Amino acid sequence: MQFHVNGEVVPAAEATVSVRDRGFMYGDAVFETMRAYAGVPFRWDAHAERLANSCDLLAIDHDLTDADLRNRVDETLAANDLREAYVKLSITRGVQPGKLTPDPVDDPGVVVMVSELPRGGTAGEEVWDDPVTAEFVDVERVPDAAIPARAKTHNYLNGILARLASNADTALMLDGDGYLAEAATSNCFFVRDGTLHTPSLDGPILPGITHQTVLELAADEGIPTETGRYRPDDLRGADEAFLTNSTWEVRPTTTIDGRRLTDDAGPITEALMGAYDRRVDREHYDRRPRDD
Amino acid sequence: MQFHVNGEVVPAAEATVSVRDRGFMYGDAVFETMRAYAGVPFRWDAHAERLANSCDLLAIDHDLTDADLRNRVDETLAANDLREAYVKLSITRGVQPGKLTPDPVDDPGVVVMVSELPRGGTAGEEVWDDPVTAEFVDVERVPDAAIPARAKTHNYLNGILARLASNADTALMLDGDGYLAEAATSNCFFVRDGTLHTPSLDGPILPGITHQTVLELAADEGIPTETGRYRPDDLRGADEAFLTNSTWEVRPTTTIDGRRLTDDAGPITEALMGAYDRRVDREHYDRRPRDD
Repeated sequence: MQFHVNGEVVPAAEATVSVRDRGFMYGDAVFETMRAYAGVPFRWDAHAERLANSCDLLAIDHDLTDADLRNRVDETLAANDLREAYVKLSITRGVQPGKLTPDPVDDPGVVVMVSELPRGGTAGEEVWDDPVTAEFVDVERVPDAAIPARAKTHNYLNGILARLASNADTALMLDGDGYLAEAATSNCFFVRDGTLHTPSLDGPILPGITHQTVLELAADEGIPTETGRYRPDDLRGADEAFLTNSTWEVRPTTTIDGRRLTDDAGPITEALMGAYDRRVDREHYDRRPRDD
Repeated sequence: MQFHVNGEVVPAAEATVSVRDRGFMYGDAVFETMRAYAGVPFRWDAHAERLANSCDLLAIDHDLTDADLRNRVDETLAANDLREAYVKLSITRGVQPGKLTPDPVDDPGVVVMVSELPRGGTAGEEVWDDPVTAEFVDVERVPDAAIPARAKTHNYLNGILARLASNADTALMLDGDGYLAEAATSNCFFVRDGTLHTPSLDGPILPGITHQTVLELAADEGIPTETGRYRPDDLRGADEAFLTNSTWEVRPTTTIDGRRLTDDAGPITEALMGAYDRRVDREHYDRRPRDD
């Protein structure tokens, strides 16, 4: 595999950053994960916008253009001859003199990592279409007053600690007031009495691109939707649940805290998985919806 | 300058880690900063113990011994012929397959960075003995329920955001209940009516080695000491204040939120700076206290 590091395509084994890069020293970096379908990143503009917003929130005042960043992603995909792929794009504040207070960004670090991820299929050990199990953990989501959740950063220990505290595939996290925030790498949705629910982004919750896509699809499909603040029991007592992120797309969650919600994806989850597939088909494969 | 990276001493310009190292990807790493006096790290045992505790808290279950880590620090100092130095020792969870949930640690990353830091003098742009200015900021300290403050980790964006929000040399941070926690890279002390005060470590506060040393010295010097929970006004209305970390030692804080507390280090601050110097003298220079 080849990665893109600070302007050069290099073999993954030689893809390194300085130990003085603030991305390594402090996790002082932002990133996007996205999926390429047919060689093209899904919803690039939305990812580029969120990345820019993450940089603004951390005052990483680089002068990289969206076109430049997109070009590095495209070059990485091309170098690996990859069409169906996972893509991670990171921007760091770069190497600066050794003090915590950042200087203006002269020379940001830019890293693109990719791996093969066949659509709707399996990739290595992971079976992305399989349901996941989820579990509430005591590790609380970092509050916005400490680090804004709208910034997608390399400070990921909060999610790692949540995963370590969980015996399930992923960990559900609450905010400091005991309301459902998000899972360690994904946004949460659940269905009760035919209505789709998801925590409002007013909480310490990353505004997921897939989350936003699913809300658009639910509106298109005429599925009633409510956003709000929810307690763990709201999710535990749901008729259906699923998690979303760019890699997982819409991923059914059939077991929460060891209790089985459904045997397989519920009907509204299925409807949204189908609608998501059709949107990808339409935008990336230039063909009519598949007959599922 | 030469650094120590994963077992090898290399020129600083070639000191790199893989972009797949979890230290870079997630800030999934712990560290210690310490100071070497006369070629020997000050209070190594206390730093090694805190580092081990940080690893425990993050389940970074490496099998590196304290002696091995100390040896890497010593080799780095020797390679640079440094006797008075700043030392940063980091342990990362290393390169692992691309998922957030950590695997057991097979091959941890170990990095030692050093720079020259003359004792009681100046180093490059920084004048370590000068008083610092400090300012309260709205950025709250990450709560223990999200990431335990007892772990000293590479997730340092909380402190960076605090520094960015401050116009002073450093930023004073409150916990979620509005009590004084710590400054962005240091512990806080203040003096009122002859009594030394510092926030209790029950809050989201890193247990500083220098903080602990100062409390020991205060006891030796017969200075009355109180730990507790304090409001910003307690510090703003103090007779004296200072900040501590391994690099700064005891550093007077003469201005808080733009208001001048003292013109120079106050008498109790002076007494503790002297006692700290004498302890370093005794342990590292094998000589009687300096006549200050």
